[in-house]
Amino acid sequence: MRFQFKITGLGYYLPPHIETAEQLSKKINKTASWVISMAGVSERRVSSIDVDQMGAIAARDAIGDKPQPDLIINASGVPKQTIPDTSIFIQRELGYDGIPSFSIHSTCLSFITSLNVAGSLIHSKSYSRILIVSSDRGSRGRNYKEPESASLLGDAAAAVYIEPSPDDSQGLIDFEMSSWPEGANMTQVRGGGTNLHPQDELTTDDDNLFSMNGPDVFRMSLPKVYDMIQGILERNSLKRSDIDLLVPHQASGKGVKAYSKVGGFSHERVMDIVNETGNCVAASLPLALVMAHKKKMVQKGSLVLLVGTGAGLSIASAIIKV
Amino acid sequence: MRFQFKITGLGYYLPPHIETAEQLSKKINKTASWVISMAGVSERRVSSIDVDQMGAIAARDAIGDKPQPDLIINASGVPKQTIPDTSIFIQRELGYDGIPSFSIHSTCLSFITSLNVAGSLIHSKSYSRILIVSSDRGSRGRNYKEPESASLLGDAAAAVYIEPSPDDSQGLIDFEMSSWPEGANMTQVRGGGTNLHPQDELTTDDDNLFSMNGPDVFRMSLPKVYDMIQGILERNSLKRSDIDLLVPHQASGKGVKAYSKVGGFSHERVMDIVNETGNCVAASLPLALVMAHKKKMVQKGSLVLLVGTGAGLSIASAIIKV
Repeated sequence: MRFQFKITGLGYYLPPHIETAEQLSKKINKTASWVISMAGVSERRVSSIDVDQMGAIAARDAIGDKPQPDLIINASGVPKQTIPDTSIFIQRELGYDGIPSFSIHSTCLSFITSLNVAGSLIHSKSYSRILIVSSDRGSRGRNYKEPESASLLGDAAAAVYIEPSPDDSQGLIDFEMSSWPEGANMTQVRGGGTNLHPQDELTTDDDNLFSMNGPDVFRMSLPKVYDMIQGILERNSLKRSDIDLLVPHQASGKGVKAYSKVGGFSHERVMDIVNETGNCVAASLPLALVMAHKKKMVQKGSLVLLVGTGAGLSIASAIIKV
Repeated sequence: MRFQFKITGLGYYLPPHIETAEQLSKKINKTASWVISMAGVSERRVSSIDVDQMGAIAARDAIGDKPQPDLIINASGVPKQTIPDTSIFIQRELGYDGIPSFSIHSTCLSFITSLNVAGSLIHSKSYSRILIVSSDRGSRGRNYKEPESASLLGDAAAAVYIEPSPDDSQGLIDFEMSSWPEGANMTQVRGGGTNLHPQDELTTDDDNLFSMNGPDVFRMSLPKVYDMIQGILERNSLKRSDIDLLVPHQASGKGVKAYSKVGGFSHERVMDIVNETGNCVAASLPLALVMAHKKKMVQKGSLVLLVGTGAGLSIASAIIKV
């Protein structure tokens, strides 16, 4: 056991407004069947409230009647604004005051990265009630001139509440991450920072929107993810059939299906919600975990493999015993 | 000892171009003496290279001939771009490949927050050579229509390399942070995210620039920082005179001087570089630490108190034995 802890609260928020492939297809000059076949996304949610409010709803669902957390980690892909960091705004929405809070950012992998950091901080007795919130509103960054990536994105938030566990078999069994800057330009929002600052005359509208070369990301990540899964299973003397549920980042229909088609996991043990939610950036992976828990596909004692790819290109995986 | 580790490499980068108070004063329709008296900043550096390149120069200075790190944490205040996170670009500049990397963001406190996380990850044997890089180019976000805050900002990068230590008196002795969302609107870059997206018609140029109500931040943070310092010293049975050097975030001339004028530390034991560098956002605090080390004001065995305020409003402090 790397870090002993238990997830005692899981919550999510899916905005009520559904946008179908048919509705989206008109904005990108394609057909509904093109959207579904390219992205593997039949519908996605589009939020009318901002990421802090979305995150706070998911957080309240995770917190329930438990005491207020002693640390808040925002593990989202895109911030509410440049300064201050989004954790502050989530805390404000929750009505708390004085709770240390910061953000961890590794785009779509922000949740796995944060779970490892939170596990380490619980293990070292630094904190004992950590709230991790991932909230993304990718619909705000869609570039309708890039129909492939615009077909993917959707909005959601998810949160978990973790505490020390007396059970030494419960927690984060293993974690691995690697980042490959040769893929830095494959998935980008080029603007929003010091590079192509919004005030620069040369910064275009496109620079401020999401851009992804999906086929290149898929080609580059497939062997790396496969090797990482092989490695983490072997290091822990586990077979694929020992994993109760694989919860991947919901990158795309093709991306999620690759875990069964190429990765050797049986289809019904791969959590697949991308058709109904789209790629919700950093919120996708915890959303899939939380929805699996609500559907009782993950229960106490379940062995869960979290795995995903993120802009960077980064890949990460974690094995948790719930 | 909270987290046992040693800082084995310290590096920084100050861009060569100096902008004096006289030069800045013309841009904001003030005089040089107004700039110096309001901000306490006689000169600041203005970088012509971006944050990733600045950070990589500081990182190479910290790494020296040591092996490549096994984790890179970007601990900056403002990113290079929205996606991917800046750690990827720093890794690319360093010529590495495959090293896990992510960002931790708590604006001006990103370095202290990251040092605590890195300490925890060293303590738990997750990593053994962690590179923390803070690189900020605040000059890009100056709003010349807000002369007070525009007088403060400067550009810099700093980096540290940390490893496990066999000496159980060396490392992070204590750490504390708290965040107070009632101050969320006192220090902001309102744009750059999902809230006031660059593509929104209502987003103004001002929304994308730095804005701070310095007097309100000072008033709100002074008693909180004072109490936090009292608390961390008492918890560790330390007197002010036991601290070899206090290294504060270089918020402003007045902000740094408050540690001796109000805080009870002797003037010569407070690291004060703000007059020559300005407020370099997240890079200020590690820059002050690294410069103190290069000047031999911090040496092996030194007891150092790191402390600062950040947008949020957040406050944090840490005691390290070098």
